[in-house]
Amino acid sequence: MRLAVLAEKIGAVVDGDGSLEITGLAPIDEAGPGSLTFVANPRYAKHLLTTAASAVIVAEDVEVGNLTALRAPEPYAAFVAALAIFDARPRPVAGIHPTAVVADSASVGEGAYVGPYAVIGDDTVIGRDARIYPHVVIYPQVTIGDRFVAHAGAVVRECVRLGDDVRLQPGCVLGGDGFGFLPVGDVPPAIPQIGGVEVGDGVDIGANTTVDRAAIGDTRLAKGVKLDNLVMVAHGCRIGEASLLAGQVGMAGSTVIGRRVQAGGQAGFSGHQVIGDDVRLGARAVPVGDVAEGRTVAGYPAVEAGLWRRCVAALERLPDLLKRVRALERRLDGDGDRK
Amino acid sequence: MRLAVLAEKIGAVVDGDGSLEITGLAPIDEAGPGSLTFVANPRYAKHLLTTAASAVIVAEDVEVGNLTALRAPEPYAAFVAALAIFDARPRPVAGIHPTAVVADSASVGEGAYVGPYAVIGDDTVIGRDARIYPHVVIYPQVTIGDRFVAHAGAVVRECVRLGDDVRLQPGCVLGGDGFGFLPVGDVPPAIPQIGGVEVGDGVDIGANTTVDRAAIGDTRLAKGVKLDNLVMVAHGCRIGEASLLAGQVGMAGSTVIGRRVQAGGQAGFSGHQVIGDDVRLGARAVPVGDVAEGRTVAGYPAVEAGLWRRCVAALERLPDLLKRVRALERRLDGDGDRK
Amino acid sequence: MRLAVLAEKIGAVVDGDGSLEITGLAPIDEAGPGSLTFVANPRYAKHLLTTAASAVIVAEDVEVGNLTALRAPEPYAAFVAALAIFDARPRPVAGIHPTAVVADSASVGEGAYVGPYAVIGDDTVIGRDARIYPHVVIYPQVTIGDRFVAHAGAVVRECVRLGDDVRLQPGCVLGGDGFGFLPVGDVPPAIPQIGGVEVGDGVDIGANTTVDRAAIGDTRLAKGVKLDNLVMVAHGCRIGEASLLAGQVGMAGSTVIGRRVQAGGQAGFSGHQVIGDDVRLGARAVPVGDVAEGRTVAGYPAVEAGLWRRCVAALERLPDLLKRVRALERRLDGDGDRK
Repeated sequence: MRLAVLAEKIGAVVDGDGSLEITGLAPIDEAGPGSLTFVANPRYAKHLLTTAASAVIVAEDVEVGNLTALRAPEPYAAFVAALAIFDARPRPVAGIHPTAVVADSASVGEGAYVGPYAVIGDDTVIGRDARIYPHVVIYPQVTIGDRFVAHAGAVVRECVRLGDDVRLQPGCVLGGDGFGFLPVGDVPPAIPQIGGVEVGDGVDIGANTTVDRAAIGDTRLAKGVKLDNLVMVAHGCRIGEASLLAGQVGMAGSTVIGRRVQAGGQAGFSGHQVIGDDVRLGARAVPVGDVAEGRTVAGYPAVEAGLWRRCVAALERLPDLLKRVRALERRLDGDGDRK
Repeated sequence: MRLAVLAEKIGAVVDGDGSLEITGLAPIDEAGPGSLTFVANPRYAKHLLTTAASAVIVAEDVEVGNLTALRAPEPYAAFVAALAIFDARPRPVAGIHPTAVVADSASVGEGAYVGPYAVIGDDTVIGRDARIYPHVVIYPQVTIGDRFVAHAGAVVRECVRLGDDVRLQPGCVLGGDGFGFLPVGDVPPAIPQIGGVEVGDGVDIGANTTVDRAAIGDTRLAKGVKLDNLVMVAHGCRIGEASLLAGQVGMAGSTVIGRRVQAGGQAGFSGHQVIGDDVRLGARAVPVGDVAEGRTVAGYPAVEAGLWRRCVAALERLPDLLKRVRALERRLDGDGDRK
Repeated sequence: MRLAVLAEKIGAVVDGDGSLEITGLAPIDEAGPGSLTFVANPRYAKHLLTTAASAVIVAEDVEVGNLTALRAPEPYAAFVAALAIFDARPRPVAGIHPTAVVADSASVGEGAYVGPYAVIGDDTVIGRDARIYPHVVIYPQVTIGDRFVAHAGAVVRECVRLGDDVRLQPGCVLGGDGFGFLPVGDVPPAIPQIGGVEVGDGVDIGANTTVDRAAIGDTRLAKGVKLDNLVMVAHGCRIGEASLLAGQVGMAGSTVIGRRVQAGGQAGFSGHQVIGDDVRLGARAVPVGDVAEGRTVAGYPAVEAGLWRRCVAALERLPDLLKRVRALERRLDGDGDRK
């Protein structure tokens, strides 16, 4: 595709030679002739002077040397648009594979692809234009909106309710039984988890992530929630709109997370707590108790991120500090009678 | 169901209007008319005064205002009994789906449900009244007791042995090869993991949890062990009766955990260590070395939980402490020759 | 097998009675007559005096009391050779099960076993002698080398490229979409992940581990990389030859790990950082920023392992230290006007 044509499609302006042919996208340190590249992280900006890419998407004021630039007011959005244009990954065509087991009482809307060995249970209702890859299992009495995408091995247990535009990566599990046992006897009795899981529109669930159902009430992921891989959402948790949880985050039971919260990888929530809107949690952070709206916290127990950085920096000096305090005590004691 | 009838079934006494009709169970802050509710966590007790629930299960001495109460000596057990009564989730009926591949040499006891595309390997023996959901894979030479429940995508590798009443959530893996490689060369050679996995009666395994087989000997989960989701049990670990491990707990190889141990979410075990009976580990705790029976520990390296709380509280004051010690040194030096 | 015969096969010398019959391998504290055992961890050496094993594999200079020894210059390698000899686990025979769905345009080399319900997509090419267990799903346009082993429920997404001798444990996912969303609006738009995943020869992937594809460029695991269970490798990461990551390790996006790196369980990488060759990370370590070649680090933020041990040892004394500093301040103030 000619660069000038591409520029128009992604809302950018060519600064340089618009007649260049672009054949794909590549990272700046690997790009060759014909490639379009993009710099989001300042760490990689130094490569602008040496890259073999034909062109780069940048903001309007970024210096790019001799490189041809596609300048856009929102360069990240322009980059995303370019990715969509060059996405050549194979896509299944609509149709229900003869080996799929779709219950007679189930309903699958128009335009669906249902792959080999997918199983759709009794009374389950799925909207239009679904893409259900091989080996997806949807239990009975599930309701799912339009444009559902479920990759191989994803499992949706009974009675779970999903909105429109929900996408499941391979191996994720929605509606597994919450971890509830009475801690008595040599075989702790299970607490039946008869509640549900409700997932809003536009939610993405990562590979092998698990979202449990509760004893009573629903576990809820609001509109636009995004969960990365291997995340654990326990029974009765609620996550507000557009919150993003990175890989291996864990939420203990009945954690309530507000809107637009972002949690770094391996962060943990100890349960029965409320995290306000727009909170940012560093990787590995564990808030103990509630966190007020808008705070940025880190560490365990999580405190204000700057304080945490100062604390851990100070920690390296603690062994030395112990010696210094002992020296002070000796000087005050004069005769050194304190060891 | 009339409240008076329900009360009798769950071993409770009506304190109020026994003629109320109960249609389901709901969390106290979401319950409406017709709902029965329950308060386990004191955090939610304040809702007793404002809930729209028709009735609440409580202990004999709890004040509930105008609400009708079901009073029970063991309110949690009564709540569990009520959950079982109102559990309306669809259940498969017995029968082996024509698409299930059950090896000729395998044996499945009476009363089993085996769902679409389940695979049961050669010489595998499964007891009576199993519920094997779609897409479960049981490898050859596995032995399983009665009342086995395995949800979609669960995998049991070859030669694993399971007792009665074992329940597997979706996607869990029993008997994967332990992580054993000789750390030499550019392709570290694998150490064959020819040992087994032995799981006792009444064990529950969470979604996408993994329990590995060992090079020699068995990885063992004793009777009544309960593992939450995304837990990692490495080769050669042993977990004692009725121990409960919460989500994302990780056990390195050859960890030995005693009976009735409880570990909070994301706790870790560094391996080749012995954790005594009745130990409690806080969320994210990592014991280094053995832990004596009955202790309650937290932090990394895990220490007595109260000490850990004091330490992390003190940590916030460390940057200030550094300044104070420097000030003391200057005062003692008099002329401030020390910076 | 007679001990003398076994000794020759594994490159060891009999020190004792070579006519003993060996029927299997067992851990030293469980071994009975007929068993061969092995001591790798010095923790278990005490059992040499009391074990009921018939023989033990040890180095040339280890004292074993009355026990018959198989002495080898590399006892661990001899043990691995013995494990391979006694590996009696059932193995599938070559052949493609009639229920496997192999696309017409796919190619599977000679000698393959393809189990029930495996799915192999369009234009996928797999080398010779593959072992593809039931319920493995390989998407279209994947390329895979020789001697591929994939256990039940493993998923390889479209366009992923694997070398020779790659082994996948159950439930792992290669090529899931990286976690990329523009953090705007109430449904953050997805950044298409059109890059690939490239996996070198001799790589092992643990159960339920996930390796994501990137927006652009490849996520890369070099020759001989070994990942344990429940590991998360985010989009754009690169791992060098023969590096070993233990269970539940998490790598945020674009982390670059060198060769022969070893990371303990639950370690984390915060992303966009470079970890040098031969670095060792303790369990739960989180390096912040780059780590130079050959270092051994621990803690969060990870520092030199010895320093970290001293710091956490000192941390236990911090509450007391606060009191001591206050006491010093009072003594210097004389009248105690400082509280």
